[in-house]
Amino acid sequence: MNITVTSTRESIQISLVQLDNYGPWTVTPSPRRETDLQALQARLYAALAEFVSTHDGYAFFDRFDNMIAVTDGMTVADHKRFQEQVRNQYPVTVSIGIGVGETPTNALGAASQALQAEGSAQDAERTERLATAGSVGDTPGLLTIAHFDVVDVTSEFTDRKDAGETSLTIQRATVSLASYLREEYDGVTRFVGGDNIIALCPSLDLEAFEAAREHVQATTGIDLQVGIGEGETPHEAGYRAKLALEECRETGQRIDRVGLRATIDR
Amino acid sequence: MNITVTSTRESIQISLVQLDNYGPWTVTPSPRRETDLQALQARLYAALAEFVSTHDGYAFFDRFDNMIAVTDGMTVADHKRFQEQVRNQYPVTVSIGIGVGETPTNALGAASQALQAEGSAQDAERTERLATAGSVGDTPGLLTIAHFDVVDVTSEFTDRKDAGETSLTIQRATVSLASYLREEYDGVTRFVGGDNIIALCPSLDLEAFEAAREHVQATTGIDLQVGIGEGETPHEAGYRAKLALEECRETGQRIDRVGLRATIDR
Amino acid sequence: MNITVTSTRESIQISLVQLDNYGPWTVTPSPRRETDLQALQARLYAALAEFVSTHDGYAFFDRFDNMIAVTDGMTVADHKRFQEQVRNQYPVTVSIGIGVGETPTNALGAASQALQAEGSAQDAERTERLATAGSVGDTPGLLTIAHFDVVDVTSEFTDRKDAGETSLTIQRATVSLASYLREEYDGVTRFVGGDNIIALCPSLDLEAFEAAREHVQATTGIDLQVGIGEGETPHEAGYRAKLALEECRETGQRIDRVGLRATIDR
Amino acid sequence: MNITVTSTRESIQISLVQLDNYGPWTVTPSPRRETDLQALQARLYAALAEFVSTHDGYAFFDRFDNMIAVTDGMTVADHKRFQEQVRNQYPVTVSIGIGVGETPTNALGAASQALQAEGSAQDAERTERLATAGSVGDTPGLLTIAHFDVVDVTSEFTDRKDAGETSLTIQRATVSLASYLREEYDGVTRFVGGDNIIALCPSLDLEAFEAAREHVQATTGIDLQVGIGEGETPHEAGYRAKLALEECRETGQRIDRVGLRATIDR
Repeated sequence: MNITVTSTRESIQISLVQLDNYGPWTVTPSPRRETDLQALQARLYAALAEFVSTHDGYAFFDRFDNMIAVTDGMTVADHKRFQEQVRNQYPVTVSIGIGVGETPTNALGAASQALQAEGSAQDAERTERLATAGSVGDTPGLLTIAHFDVVDVTSEFTDRKDAGETSLTIQRATVSLASYLREEYDGVTRFVGGDNIIALCPSLDLEAFEAAREHVQATTGIDLQVGIGEGETPHEAGYRAKLALEECRETGQRIDRVGLRATIDR
Repeated sequence: MNITVTSTRESIQISLVQLDNYGPWTVTPSPRRETDLQALQARLYAALAEFVSTHDGYAFFDRFDNMIAVTDGMTVADHKRFQEQVRNQYPVTVSIGIGVGETPTNALGAASQALQAEGSAQDAERTERLATAGSVGDTPGLLTIAHFDVVDVTSEFTDRKDAGETSLTIQRATVSLASYLREEYDGVTRFVGGDNIIALCPSLDLEAFEAAREHVQATTGIDLQVGIGEGETPHEAGYRAKLALEECRETGQRIDRVGLRATIDR
Repeated sequence: MNITVTSTRESIQISLVQLDNYGPWTVTPSPRRETDLQALQARLYAALAEFVSTHDGYAFFDRFDNMIAVTDGMTVADHKRFQEQVRNQYPVTVSIGIGVGETPTNALGAASQALQAEGSAQDAERTERLATAGSVGDTPGLLTIAHFDVVDVTSEFTDRKDAGETSLTIQRATVSLASYLREEYDGVTRFVGGDNIIALCPSLDLEAFEAAREHVQATTGIDLQVGIGEGETPHEAGYRAKLALEECRETGQRIDRVGLRATIDR
Repeated sequence: MNITVTSTRESIQISLVQLDNYGPWTVTPSPRRETDLQALQARLYAALAEFVSTHDGYAFFDRFDNMIAVTDGMTVADHKRFQEQVRNQYPVTVSIGIGVGETPTNALGAASQALQAEGSAQDAERTERLATAGSVGDTPGLLTIAHFDVVDVTSEFTDRKDAGETSLTIQRATVSLASYLREEYDGVTRFVGGDNIIALCPSLDLEAFEAAREHVQATTGIDLQVGIGEGETPHEAGYRAKLALEECRETGQRIDRVGLRATIDR
C-alpha cells in the first residue's frame, strides 16, 4: 500500500447547475414524451461534462435537472459561457450556484444556498442566474478523489444475477456509502455508471476509507474496493484514483492510494 | 379517483443493452478521462432512448453500461439496427438480451439470462450478441406504468435543503420503492431525473400502489404521489400516468389512475 | 460492367425540413455565437439522419436551415413525431413539406411549393407546419442512387494539395455535377463529405452517367467515378451504389452498376 | 458606413483536423450505412465547434473528413486534448495540422503541409499525429472576418424558388466568392448554413470587399451583402461582422464594417 502524506486542500469549488423551471416545462402544454426528456437530460449532462473537462473538472448527473460539477479554477465568466451554450442549443436554460468550501459538503451547501437565494427553481422569472459563495476560481492545494467499485461485480453479479437485482444492489451500496461519507467526513459521493462510485473527499487517512468500506459491508453486505488519488485538479486526482483502483483489482487488496509522484498520462 | 377496470397484459418485452467488455476498455491502455466516459455513456443512453421512441417505447439508464428498455412491438431486426448504429458511431459495441415475460421482473430476468448464456460481459470475444427469450415482438394487451414523484419536492427540498441531502433523499426513496415493488409485485422501478421515479408494473389494484407509498413513507419518511396509466405502448401508458400525476399535483390526492378513455395527445 | 435492366420507379418521396423563422432567431436579441449555431445545426442534421434511417431513408444537410431527406414509406404521423422530437430537444422548431413526384426534382419542387403555401420561412406565426403534395407514404417501385467520388482524391489532392484548394475543387465538381443532373435528368445531387457526392436519379441508362462524368471533366477538369444502385429503399439503393463504387476503385473502371441481385448486408 | 482603421494582424492560426484513414473505414468490412456516417460526421463537427469555442475560435465543416478551425491562442496541449476526446467518444481518430501564417491561405497551407509530411491520410499507420508549422499559440494583433449573405434570400429564393435551385444558387455564390477571395486576397471562405458565407481575411480595404461582391454578381448574378468585423479572437471579429451585417439588412447598404469600439456582448 502506497501511503503518501500530502498537504491538505484548503478548499474545493463545486457548481450546482439547475434547469430553470424545468418541471412545469415538462408538462406544458401537455406532458412531453418521456424518451425525449431522457435524451434531452442525457445530452445536457454530456454538455456539462465536456464543459468542465476543459478545465480538468469532474461532473455528476445527480438528478439531471440539478447537476453537480467540480469546477476548481473555472471563473464566473466560464460559467456564463456554459449558460450561453445551453441557451443557444437547448429548449431550456440553466441557473448556476458556485460554492467554495473547506469540504465538498460545505462547497455544495454553499452553492445550494447561493442559488436558493436567487429564488425558487420553479419561479418562471428566475432564469439564468449565476450566484456565488466564496472566492470563485481561487482554490489552491490538493484535491482528494476516491473511486470505489464492487469487488468481482462481473462474475458475481452482471454475469450471474438478474439485472434488476444487480442494479438495486449497487444503488443500495451507493446510498449507504454516500450517507456515511457525507455524515462522517463531509464527502460528496455519486454513482457514475457500471459499479463505479466516486467520492469527493477532504484529505483523509486510509482508516477512514476502510471504515466506509466496512460500513457498506455491514449495512448492505456488499464488498467495495477503493482507489484514492490526490491532485491539483479533479482529473489529476481522479486519474490517480483510477490507477490505485487498478492496483486493487490486480493485487486483491481493498484500498490503494496513489500520490503526487505518479505520472499522469494526459 | 378514476378507477378503470382494464384487461391484464399477458406479457411485456424488456431489452437489456450491455456494452461489450466495457470495464476493461475504460482502462486500456490507461484509465480514460472520467468526463469523456460520462459524456459517452450519456450519449449512448440518449441514442437508446431515441431508438425505442420510434416504437413508443421507454428507456432507463440503469447502470449506463447496462441499460434497460421496454421494447414491445420491436423485432430482432430492429435491435440489430441499433447494434449497427452503435458500431458505426461509437467506440464501443453492444450486446442485447430481449426478454418477454408475464411480469416486468420476469421479462428483465429472461433478458438477463439470455444474455448471460452468450458469455461474460467482460469476455472480449463476446461482442454484438443478440439473444432472445420468449416470443419477441408479440406482446398484445395492456401495459401499466406508474409515475411517482415526491410531494412538494421544490418547496420542501430543492429550494430549501442542501442539494446533497435532497439527492440522497430521493435515492433512498427510489431504493425503497424499487425494492418493495420488485419483491411484492414483480415491478421494475427506475429513477428518471428530478424527483421522478417510473415503475413498470403488472396490472395492480390501487391498494397495491397505496401500500407502496406507505412502505416508502414508513422506511424513509418520504411522501410520494403516483399517477398510474394503462396503454398499448409504454408511451401511451406513461403519458396517461403523467396525466394522472398532474391530477394529483392539482387536487392534492396521492394516487390517480387514467384509463384507456383518456385521449392521447401525440 | 454489370448492366441490369430494372423496372422504373414511378415516384419518389422527398421531405424538405425547414427551421421556423431561424434567421431572425440567430440574431435575437443579439447575434448568437457562430460555433454554437454550427453545433446546433450539425446536431439537428444528425437527428434528421437518424430519424429517416429508421425507415432506411437518406438525408442531406443541404443548407442546414433547410434540410432534405428521402422518406419513401414514411407517413405524415412519422414526420409529426420528428417535429415533436425537435420541439422537445432543441430551441427551434421545424416545418416540413413532403413531396411525391415522378422524379427527384419534381418531388423536391412539390415539397417546396407545399411548404411555401403555408407562409414565409421568416413568418413568426408559421411554425410546425406539415404540408404534403402527392400520395405520401405510397411510392412503390425501385429507386436509383448514384454515388460519385473523385478518382485518386487522396493521392492527388488530400496528400498533396493545400486543403483550401482541394475543398474548392470538390465544391466545383459538386456544383457542375448537380447542375447537369438537375437540368438534364431531374436529379437531386448533394455533397455528403470527403469527396463523395450522392445523386438521387430517375432510372437512367449508363450513358447518362457517362455524359455527366464528361460534363464535369470538361467544365472543371475533375475526373469522377460513379457507382449506381437500385433498391426499394434509399438505403438499399445507396448500399448497392457503394458496392458499385468499390468495384470502380478496385478495377479502375469509371462506372459500375449493382442491381437487385446483389445481397444487401444489413 | 463605419470605416475604422485598424492595425493589421501579423498572423493567424488555422488547424486542419483530418479523420485518420476514414475512407477505408467507411467501407470496412462492407459499406456502412450512409445516414450513420452523416450523423457521425455531423456530431464530430459539432464537437470540434465546441472545442474551439472554449477559446473563442471558429470552425468550418469543410469536407467533414477534413475540418478547419481558427485556433488562435490554442496550444498543442489543447489540440491533444481534442484528440483524446475523439478517441474516447468516437469510432475514429483524428490527426491535426496546425499552421500559423501571415494570411489565412498561408496558415491553411502550412497546416496542410505539416500534416502531409506525417504521411498519407489513408495510411493505416498514421494515426493521431499532431504536426505544427509556425509559432503555435502566439498570434497577436487583430483578425478580420467577413460575414456575407444573399440579399433578400427569403423573399427572393426560400419562399419562392424550388429548394434545389436555391441550394445550387448559394453553392455557386460560395464557389465564386471563395475562389475570388483566395486568389486575390489569400482569404479562406466557407459556407456556414442558410445563405451565410464566412471569410477569414487579411486586413483589407472596403474596396476589396466591394470588388468581391461585384465579382460574384458578374459571374453568378447573385447580390451579396457583407458585414466586416475585426477583433482579437475569431468570435470577437465574427460578432462584429454579424453586427455589421445586421446594419446592412436594416439600412439597405451592401457593406458595413464594425471596428473595435463596438461593445461585444458576451
